[in-house]
Amino acid sequence: MKTFFDCLPCLVRQALDSVRMVTDDEQTHETILREVLQMAGAMDFGVPPAAMAQRLHRRIRELTGIDDPYREAKDRLNARAMELCESLRPRIAGAADPMEAALRLAIAGNIMDLGVKTSLDDGHVCRSIENCLNEPFEADIGAFWEAMSGAERILYLADNAGEIAFDRLLIEQLPREKVTVAVRGGAVINDATLDDAEEVGLADLVEVIGNGSDAPGTLLDDCSDGFCERFAAADVILSKGQGNYETLSESARPIWFLLRVKCPIIARHLETEVGRMVLRRS
Amino acid sequence: MKTFFDCLPCLVRQALDSVRMVTDDEQTHETILREVLQMAGAMDFGVPPAAMAQRLHRRIRELTGIDDPYREAKDRLNARAMELCESLRPRIAGAADPMEAALRLAIAGNIMDLGVKTSLDDGHVCRSIENCLNEPFEADIGAFWEAMSGAERILYLADNAGEIAFDRLLIEQLPREKVTVAVRGGAVINDATLDDAEEVGLADLVEVIGNGSDAPGTLLDDCSDGFCERFAAADVILSKGQGNYETLSESARPIWFLLRVKCPIIARHLETEVGRMVLRRS
Repeated sequence: MKTFFDCLPCLVRQALDSVRMVTDDEQTHETILREVLQMAGAMDFGVPPAAMAQRLHRRIRELTGIDDPYREAKDRLNARAMELCESLRPRIAGAADPMEAALRLAIAGNIMDLGVKTSLDDGHVCRSIENCLNEPFEADIGAFWEAMSGAERILYLADNAGEIAFDRLLIEQLPREKVTVAVRGGAVINDATLDDAEEVGLADLVEVIGNGSDAPGTLLDDCSDGFCERFAAADVILSKGQGNYETLSESARPIWFLLRVKCPIIARHLETEVGRMVLRRS
Repeated sequence: MKTFFDCLPCLVRQALDSVRMVTDDEQTHETILREVLQMAGAMDFGVPPAAMAQRLHRRIRELTGIDDPYREAKDRLNARAMELCESLRPRIAGAADPMEAALRLAIAGNIMDLGVKTSLDDGHVCRSIENCLNEPFEADIGAFWEAMSGAERILYLADNAGEIAFDRLLIEQLPREKVTVAVRGGAVINDATLDDAEEVGLADLVEVIGNGSDAPGTLLDDCSDGFCERFAAADVILSKGQGNYETLSESARPIWFLLRVKCPIIARHLETEVGRMVLRRS
């Protein structure tokens, strides 16, 4: 997906939100704001917004000297998500269709995204996850499970810290010996890295690899050769969240996109509405 | 008022809204978007957002070759506002306090602002104006009327087309021989100019002057000498809307600001909430 004109004011707002989250220093806020405006004015709109976000967050880390500015937030999100998942696991087991319940919860967990909204209200997260089991969900769930059961190599592209605990609920329903989870290769916003996969116990359950990139999405040109080989060899790919969707929506690989729609541009691109849970085959 | 960091994403969004309103040509949209991002990145944050908006709208007019791109929209707003005012005039006459009713309506008319929101929903405008007579309104109305009746020279700084018909309702309650209305000296967004004062019949009622500037506010350095003399000589100044507030909030002149609060930055500056009607002495 390219960068739409409407993404630009949003990228500027996100930059300001992000730098404020990382430091209280107003001079740094101004520097980042001016730089992101200049970068945005000169950027190639043919690349996805995630490419711009990658540059921006590198610059925030450089200016503040903090390698992983969202580390504390990610630890908090992981801990909270694990609590929620603990109480949800019996609900999955008791559901009429446990696999569908796990799928819905994995998508619901995509609400834990500090890229779109800097502060996450816990009540809002709880309600959203509570509602997800009964929300409308236009998806060919039968075809999804058929694709999963027929695959030898499933590549699961995680999105955010916190959310990755919900991914675990879904992975527990998959033939786990066939699953490899890929996380970001470096810290960016609250996107999940190897540390997060370990924190939520996912690394004990399945193979987890980094993708070699610090973009908040999957920019294949920026990923490691090792990741790209896995990506090319997978029989089926699960892609979580907007960042992965933005960067892979034009891929020819057999990808299932699982996400919560958080912006009107993505909603239009997917021909759906903001707020909806989406399961979509590429 | 200076430009706050949070004004920047909003200015970028407004630029995009504005250029889309003026032309369907995507190349022009991109040119304006890139230029506003570059301008914003290099701008002096010590000046009010209206200074940036002035440059931006000059550039839109230059690129499209249209001198007054909002002319049709302004004609429509004036016509609609005059219809609404026609039905409101008996309500003012029948109100317990006609002067307060006219004051409330003049502030309510400030909803007719295409700078903040590109499209105005007629139903929303009608409801907003209907509600304004009963809304909470923290204001020292007695002191306001005392200032008006004690003044020899009242300078009324109009804001938008459409809104200017509601200003007329208030001016009808003032000692009109003492009132001079100032409008923008050149077309910018849907801000009122001499044409609009004529369209709503205000020019037949009181003296109307242009301020010599095409900024969506009152940037004194950019106004004509004639206007500045009137501004300096007025016993009391009525300033309508956010653009005039932004540009005059630090003035030492005796100004009464009348506006509907439309953004969180102005709300914080005025220590009130978005959506509130405000009457505030400088």
